[in-house]
Amino acid sequence: MIAVLKHNVSEEQKIHLISWLKSQGLDVHISDGKDYTVLGLVGDTGKIDPELLASLEIVQTVRPVSEPYKKCSRKFHPDDSVITVGGASFGGGHFGLIAGPCSVESREQVTDIAQRVKAAGATVLRGGAFKPRTSPYDFQGLKGEGLKLLSEAKKATGLPIVSEIMKIEHLELFEDVDIIQIGARNMQNFELLRELGRTNKTILLKRGLANTIKELLMSAEYICAGGNENIILCERGIRTYETLTRNTLDLSCVPVLHELTHLPVVVDPSHATGNSRYVPSMALAAAAAGADGIMVEVHNDPLHALCDGAQSLTPEQFAKLAGKINSVRQVIAE
Amino acid sequence: MIAVLKHNVSEEQKIHLISWLKSQGLDVHISDGKDYTVLGLVGDTGKIDPELLASLEIVQTVRPVSEPYKKCSRKFHPDDSVITVGGASFGGGHFGLIAGPCSVESREQVTDIAQRVKAAGATVLRGGAFKPRTSPYDFQGLKGEGLKLLSEAKKATGLPIVSEIMKIEHLELFEDVDIIQIGARNMQNFELLRELGRTNKTILLKRGLANTIKELLMSAEYICAGGNENIILCERGIRTYETLTRNTLDLSCVPVLHELTHLPVVVDPSHATGNSRYVPSMALAAAAAGADGIMVEVHNDPLHALCDGAQSLTPEQFAKLAGKINSVRQVIAE
Amino acid sequence: MIAVLKHNVSEEQKIHLISWLKSQGLDVHISDGKDYTVLGLVGDTGKIDPELLASLEIVQTVRPVSEPYKKCSRKFHPDDSVITVGGASFGGGHFGLIAGPCSVESREQVTDIAQRVKAAGATVLRGGAFKPRTSPYDFQGLKGEGLKLLSEAKKATGLPIVSEIMKIEHLELFEDVDIIQIGARNMQNFELLRELGRTNKTILLKRGLANTIKELLMSAEYICAGGNENIILCERGIRTYETLTRNTLDLSCVPVLHELTHLPVVVDPSHATGNSRYVPSMALAAAAAGADGIMVEVHNDPLHALCDGAQSLTPEQFAKLAGKINSVRQVIAE
Amino acid sequence: MIAVLKHNVSEEQKIHLISWLKSQGLDVHISDGKDYTVLGLVGDTGKIDPELLASLEIVQTVRPVSEPYKKCSRKFHPDDSVITVGGASFGGGHFGLIAGPCSVESREQVTDIAQRVKAAGATVLRGGAFKPRTSPYDFQGLKGEGLKLLSEAKKATGLPIVSEIMKIEHLELFEDVDIIQIGARNMQNFELLRELGRTNKTILLKRGLANTIKELLMSAEYICAGGNENIILCERGIRTYETLTRNTLDLSCVPVLHELTHLPVVVDPSHATGNSRYVPSMALAAAAAGADGIMVEVHNDPLHALCDGAQSLTPEQFAKLAGKINSVRQVIAE
Repeated sequence: MIAVLKHNVSEEQKIHLISWLKSQGLDVHISDGKDYTVLGLVGDTGKIDPELLASLEIVQTVRPVSEPYKKCSRKFHPDDSVITVGGASFGGGHFGLIAGPCSVESREQVTDIAQRVKAAGATVLRGGAFKPRTSPYDFQGLKGEGLKLLSEAKKATGLPIVSEIMKIEHLELFEDVDIIQIGARNMQNFELLRELGRTNKTILLKRGLANTIKELLMSAEYICAGGNENIILCERGIRTYETLTRNTLDLSCVPVLHELTHLPVVVDPSHATGNSRYVPSMALAAAAAGADGIMVEVHNDPLHALCDGAQSLTPEQFAKLAGKINSVRQVIAE
Repeated sequence: MIAVLKHNVSEEQKIHLISWLKSQGLDVHISDGKDYTVLGLVGDTGKIDPELLASLEIVQTVRPVSEPYKKCSRKFHPDDSVITVGGASFGGGHFGLIAGPCSVESREQVTDIAQRVKAAGATVLRGGAFKPRTSPYDFQGLKGEGLKLLSEAKKATGLPIVSEIMKIEHLELFEDVDIIQIGARNMQNFELLRELGRTNKTILLKRGLANTIKELLMSAEYICAGGNENIILCERGIRTYETLTRNTLDLSCVPVLHELTHLPVVVDPSHATGNSRYVPSMALAAAAAGADGIMVEVHNDPLHALCDGAQSLTPEQFAKLAGKINSVRQVIAE
Repeated sequence: MIAVLKHNVSEEQKIHLISWLKSQGLDVHISDGKDYTVLGLVGDTGKIDPELLASLEIVQTVRPVSEPYKKCSRKFHPDDSVITVGGASFGGGHFGLIAGPCSVESREQVTDIAQRVKAAGATVLRGGAFKPRTSPYDFQGLKGEGLKLLSEAKKATGLPIVSEIMKIEHLELFEDVDIIQIGARNMQNFELLRELGRTNKTILLKRGLANTIKELLMSAEYICAGGNENIILCERGIRTYETLTRNTLDLSCVPVLHELTHLPVVVDPSHATGNSRYVPSMALAAAAAGADGIMVEVHNDPLHALCDGAQSLTPEQFAKLAGKINSVRQVIAE
Repeated sequence: MIAVLKHNVSEEQKIHLISWLKSQGLDVHISDGKDYTVLGLVGDTGKIDPELLASLEIVQTVRPVSEPYKKCSRKFHPDDSVITVGGASFGGGHFGLIAGPCSVESREQVTDIAQRVKAAGATVLRGGAFKPRTSPYDFQGLKGEGLKLLSEAKKATGLPIVSEIMKIEHLELFEDVDIIQIGARNMQNFELLRELGRTNKTILLKRGLANTIKELLMSAEYICAGGNENIILCERGIRTYETLTRNTLDLSCVPVLHELTHLPVVVDPSHATGNSRYVPSMALAAAAAGADGIMVEVHNDPLHALCDGAQSLTPEQFAKLAGKINSVRQVIAE
């Protein structure tokens, strides 16, 4: 940690602060400039609250040097993590293609979609059973029944399945679910993260609506800290002032995350744009940006979908998109 | 709900859509303009997904007309709700002054602060026992032990207490807690909201880091929908691009919320600014804006606080501030 | 324009408002619902200030129906505009590759870079001569001298050139400049837009740091309104709370703009990310998203660049990128 | 400037960088930690581009230590600047009350409003003559004629006047204007700032829609750098994702600016909220936050105002507000 002192600090104040820092067990390297003094703090700086230090009258700014995430960091794990589940792989050159309906609605619906997306090249089936909805009066999903229908579609197609969990009490219902999704609104539900860190389930962790890339990594760290490193990160759009898309897809997080972490990064253009007309171009852009997978919503009858139909592709549109994604991936792999 | 059709829609497409809307049980009022046609949809529009409708090729825009919150809405409850707990009241002309340490650290600390803030005019004691922290490696609070120390301070001073809950399993630990806080990161933890809606506890609901005012009301609606209308809303700063304050305090939400809802609105300038030097002016501004209460962090030894010391006032600073807040309130009540 | 009245409006108030609207020369279509009344306003609604209308006690919301941009709108100009200048084309299937240094520094520098980017496939040379800098104490560009050096590089390579203008008085200095850039900070410098609308120069209009897509189109409309429709739009990143990239590249604006306007859309990943390590993946993503061109900074000696070296590619990196962009374009054109 | 090197940098790389930095005329203080090396750079760091340095493979982060604004900085000018013009003063305990119509519409309108706001306590009359409008088809102001009408109102009441300039060529029309406003959209029109820096006019500099507090100070520095330090800063709301107010008023910038600069800070709640119902509470909040002045729109007939009527107070509402502002100021001055 580095602390920059203000220019008009007295020698006495400086000594007082330095001795306090030393009493906290730190080594203090002093660098005196014309206009300021810089203190380099070495040792276990975890005990020092940087904002408290910054608030002191004589301190101008404080800057942590080492990142607070460890197990997620590429620094300590230089090679890409490859997450493999039910035959689908993400990361280290492997690309996962997740597709399926926003919500599971019926046996016919989910099985039909599963078969069609599999035929088009999907490697994982998605489907919401527990739905986080802004309004308590909106459709909240088929819940346990939805998970069962998803399992049947898995049996019928052999595709591994991903579905969102909303509270840890539901964990046993997810036994047959291959990848448990933590939704954007729960990215900082630390209790849920902690509990899932104690399982050995593969986790798809979505970036929160207004969370930074570093906060996403800290939430992944909560899961890793419990012993579970089977994590796939997911960018799904962030909140900005622009209203013509539901959110703003932050594709530049893909190369940034690849630099900072060994975990694979998947992109969800359906929720980001909220409009099926924009999904194909954003899915292709994500592949070109180097994402390790794509998650798109596909519905066999978007007009009558109970939820988020506006952003779903038809199976035909998805099949066409899947082919192009493959071609784009070949170009960037060259 | 209103749907505006594009200018080049054929008569056949229009009839097709209208008959589908009617088949959903809606009345459709048609208003033909030179450049567009407007459909006014009347009836139970809850069945129609506005985004799906908007995604249709022939539809330009869709706009919900009625708000999705009901029990929180001033429309159906024109008078201010007054929330009273343990002698403190919020709303309808009553102003609550919540003060205390960010985290409960020890019996001496919390009781000492409690006595000093009470003497200065505080009506509720705050203190964190379960702390949501971005990093799994940071201090997470004294937990159950912290709540006990808070209860002791309550006994010693007679002040009702407020503390944050992070999962519903902890509810029984909060029996003696008068106001249960839902933190910003859990504002859309719908499972937690739903469970607290089934209790009769007073809830302090903080606005999420990047949530709109309408989403805050929808989260309050989750609690109301379960039968619990003892809710105090809390603005604590939103995330913007500005970095000189931790968040940007959105004080204009105070008059907006007063227009939309009957629930009282409290402002937390400590977390919003993240810096004790800016807390007094923002607390006074909140009082002048018409807030129904203020929540500020007070610490007897900010330099050694384990958490968020940077934003805490000393008891002396708080006492001075409390006096000025009273005077400001008298001015605006005239 | 549509105005929704509040539910508790008296018949008298309604009549009063409607007669005022009619007195403004509008036809008013009335649609009465159970909970609200919708007024559809037809005619020259330009005279009505929607915010004023919305502020009336009895009005709940107001929504303009027709877009305020006309000449830029695809509605009135369904085919893509193809902008061709000095042999380079943008739009309608044509892809322009703009490359060059952030700032023109010397004859050798700019000519050397021009030759190298041309060899790699660039179709336009960029180079800043007048530099808008946040600080008055930073390097402000070689100005007129810089434009001369750019002209020499144009002569040496045959590449058309693009450079930023900062005030209309400099226009004559730009006689040999093929494309005049309006920078992000001047996107709403309406006087400058208006003046350039009276020229027949090709304009590269950059989206402002925090401007919406609609505002970008309105600024283009200022130029069109003067008679100049030779406009290329440019996305260069918007301001968000994320700090690991300089700005957040909003690639979803590419399909959105293609829907709303016939003008070509170029993407600048260099300024958006501010970091050369992220430029190639974002350039490829832009091509995959369907952009009509890319603008990237290339420098022969990034370490010593006077300005924005951090975001410049070397000529070698650019050559490799240009080849991949071509391949990606072939994939998406299929 | 401080540069933190990555943990795995070789001794050779380190020496290479340090010798390059020294060749730029800097002293380099080295502080070796367990996990990182910190370089403290002392001397004329203006020559070094921090983003270039940060982009080097071996560098983790770079942090400027001294602020780039000098003449605006409180560091070099500890006392408040008091800006006095035509009898009105701002800063150092003086509070300016600016009121008037958004646009000048007619002699009767502006003179009538001027007399009424003066009677209510206003010290400066505002009125737009050149109006920056998002759409080229909207009313653009009465221009030169509007300034003349404003001058007449000045003669009739003795109030100094403020009006916005949009290009420097109009300067001579502003001879009788006491305070020249630079609007939010022109905050980074550096050419305009530079030209106004060469005049001795008092400047009201509005913060841009999405500009940071530091950027506002850098724009003020452009004016100061030319020799003109008669500057009043103005907060008018920033762009966020919240849509229930036109912008989000960032009142916490008031104490932050008071810490960083000696220049007075005025708040404009009319443009920030865009709704007259929210103006009084935000004006009072601004006064309570310690602002050196308020600028509010007042119109004698808001319903028929040509521009921004929605956000204007009536003269009666303004008179009531002005009285309360005085009382709030007395409270906070105690």
